[in-house]
Amino acid sequence: MKPILVVNYKAYPTSHGKTAESIARKAAELSSKYNIRIILAVPATEAYKISRIHPDTYIQSVDPVPEGAHTGHITPEMAEETGAKGILLNHSEKKLLYRDIQKIINRTKLETLVCAETPEEAAAVSLLKPTMIAVEPPELIGTGIPVSKAKPEIITKTVQLVKQYNKETIILTGAGISTPEDAIKAIQLGTQGVLVASTIMKAEDPLRKLEDFAMKMGIS
Amino acid sequence: MKPILVVNYKAYPTSHGKTAESIARKAAELSSKYNIRIILAVPATEAYKISRIHPDTYIQSVDPVPEGAHTGHITPEMAEETGAKGILLNHSEKKLLYRDIQKIINRTKLETLVCAETPEEAAAVSLLKPTMIAVEPPELIGTGIPVSKAKPEIITKTVQLVKQYNKETIILTGAGISTPEDAIKAIQLGTQGVLVASTIMKAEDPLRKLEDFAMKMGIS
Amino acid sequence: MKPILVVNYKAYPTSHGKTAESIARKAAELSSKYNIRIILAVPATEAYKISRIHPDTYIQSVDPVPEGAHTGHITPEMAEETGAKGILLNHSEKKLLYRDIQKIINRTKLETLVCAETPEEAAAVSLLKPTMIAVEPPELIGTGIPVSKAKPEIITKTVQLVKQYNKETIILTGAGISTPEDAIKAIQLGTQGVLVASTIMKAEDPLRKLEDFAMKMGIS
Amino acid sequence: MKPILVVNYKAYPTSHGKTAESIARKAAELSSKYNIRIILAVPATEAYKISRIHPDTYIQSVDPVPEGAHTGHITPEMAEETGAKGILLNHSEKKLLYRDIQKIINRTKLETLVCAETPEEAAAVSLLKPTMIAVEPPELIGTGIPVSKAKPEIITKTVQLVKQYNKETIILTGAGISTPEDAIKAIQLGTQGVLVASTIMKAEDPLRKLEDFAMKMGIS
Repeated sequence: MKPILVVNYKAYPTSHGKTAESIARKAAELSSKYNIRIILAVPATEAYKISRIHPDTYIQSVDPVPEGAHTGHITPEMAEETGAKGILLNHSEKKLLYRDIQKIINRTKLETLVCAETPEEAAAVSLLKPTMIAVEPPELIGTGIPVSKAKPEIITKTVQLVKQYNKETIILTGAGISTPEDAIKAIQLGTQGVLVASTIMKAEDPLRKLEDFAMKMGIS
Repeated sequence: MKPILVVNYKAYPTSHGKTAESIARKAAELSSKYNIRIILAVPATEAYKISRIHPDTYIQSVDPVPEGAHTGHITPEMAEETGAKGILLNHSEKKLLYRDIQKIINRTKLETLVCAETPEEAAAVSLLKPTMIAVEPPELIGTGIPVSKAKPEIITKTVQLVKQYNKETIILTGAGISTPEDAIKAIQLGTQGVLVASTIMKAEDPLRKLEDFAMKMGIS
Repeated sequence: MKPILVVNYKAYPTSHGKTAESIARKAAELSSKYNIRIILAVPATEAYKISRIHPDTYIQSVDPVPEGAHTGHITPEMAEETGAKGILLNHSEKKLLYRDIQKIINRTKLETLVCAETPEEAAAVSLLKPTMIAVEPPELIGTGIPVSKAKPEIITKTVQLVKQYNKETIILTGAGISTPEDAIKAIQLGTQGVLVASTIMKAEDPLRKLEDFAMKMGIS
Repeated sequence: MKPILVVNYKAYPTSHGKTAESIARKAAELSSKYNIRIILAVPATEAYKISRIHPDTYIQSVDPVPEGAHTGHITPEMAEETGAKGILLNHSEKKLLYRDIQKIINRTKLETLVCAETPEEAAAVSLLKPTMIAVEPPELIGTGIPVSKAKPEIITKTVQLVKQYNKETIILTGAGISTPEDAIKAIQLGTQGVLVASTIMKAEDPLRKLEDFAMKMGIS
């Protein structure tokens, strides 16, 4: 299977507006140019626009409320309406209760990528059969210290634990990934790709940085 | 000044997709046909699309986080990017801390409509100088029992208290408004319009119901 | 092993004051009279007093914050200070994030009883090795419809799933248990006891109801 | 009226156990020795014990839930049961919704001390007629940089705004107060005392530090 690069737009100034769209156009181009799957995890307000530019777009989170009298919530049905392909869930900046992750996965037809902070949480989440899991020790997020170098045992333990319970869920590595080499290391440790954010979204030249990742990960 | 009708789309099945767009087209038409301002408060995922159909669109809530490393949040800047004209805040289904309402109002250039559950909360919020305040006793929301009939003293007390602190903020009435007559009663009690939801969004014929409100409120 | 009866005091008027203390005295008496372990899960404010009357007292929840500059939180260390023997965690009225349950279990020397709403959540929680797990479908809590009769398959599936991952954790049944017969049924389905609340705390004669449970469960 | 010194125990290691009790004994002694009112804001688990040593004890927060089926919450009634004299509410480490502060104040017979982060929040809270308000700019909490020196205009603006709406509520100063001189400055700026925490609770000799504050504030 192809390596996977998930770019979490977060709420950076580049997460909406012109740059957000350029990154999406570039992602569309690179996805066919290199042997790699690029997923963009975008804010709810951008999901409609970005998924028209690059169909492999995820919405950054949804709320576990049913359709009905709820103001200011994003339901899974609204996410589907945008044309997004999947939902990012349980990021350490937007944690959800386990039972709510379960409700959302059972309710939506979209793909789901669920984050986990520890190997145990990853194993627990794998019981819910999401499409993908990303293990992200929160203390490394945004630091530029790649988990694949600083704590490789977290990745290998996650792979080992998750495979025990669920052989189908794709496993990704997150937190501190700042170079294509970090991503390649994560793949060598047994995961299928990485979840990145600041390294692209805060780069001086986000498009070039994205191409650098796509090219090197696509060859690996 | 024109009477104001705010339609809160909430998370009803009609809040996204075809019906959501038809309501917006109808609102645009009625706004020029009658002497009334119609504001649509829509889900974050719909704000881009709906504000292109009817420019007087509000996003249903935003989060008080700064731009940066925040996943799954809607910042005021993202709301501005959609083209929305304003933000609905502090609805009883999405309450915010007072200091967060203050932060958002101070930070955004958009209009703000802040809900309040009691006359005291309305007065407190008026100190922050939002564009509008809607008083909505939560025990009447969605009941079809209009606050303007069941508890008119809540409206008159709100008007009296708010005017004491802030003469500019527009005051609206919410909760249980189900007929144009309820809306007219709310205006007679000293507010400038109403905030409705289920009566339109769950109507058998939402467009006809909307026209009924617009026509009768526009004449009043 | 002895059957286990956990009485969750919740925030009923009987959860503090005279009745709270009488129930504790009765629990102490019944625990030595019958072949049963009775655990009382009490409010934080009552933990010091009640654990002096009946040593087998749990505090109803703690917060996952570290010691330090946190106002209005109950840390595991404060719970230990009260003399309580354990902590009830993740009750459907006070859900916690999975990673926070993990942090608390790893940090405290006290026993832990973690609630779960589904067999999958129970299995997920069992990976964290709490002392006990109680499965409680939230839709039955407080209804008087015992899960052991209404949805016995939830109990048997929980037992089967949890045993697969963790053979040591004790499993209890909760939700809707209103008679000793419901409790006996729960034991027959493979769990070691029950978690009850309203049936004792809202009983006309809580002490007699408690003795009824203790006597019949103690024989079973 | 006497100057007021509120010591927020927070969740420091000294907030429970031996030191917590020694501070309470010292506070009782100093309250009669000097012309000062000393209030201790303690964790829920300590309220019963500490209020027996020093009757002028507040519980650090309560939850806005009604009595009944709520697990892991502290109701105002539970707070009353402990013997505490009052409730600290809305500290920046435990913010509450405005409508919940209103519910709690309306429901309890205890004194209430409500924190506010800005002059506007203080004014808003004063409409609810709490016993006291403490203004605490959160960016200074725990810094040792006293608000009375760094931002005296926040205190004077708070006093001016609050007096406009409510002449009876007592106003206190918080955030960064680390010496008796800071406290005296706060009193000179028009408030009746201070809310402190780390300067006592993390002091090498908390009892001596407390006496130093009591003596100098009592004379002022």
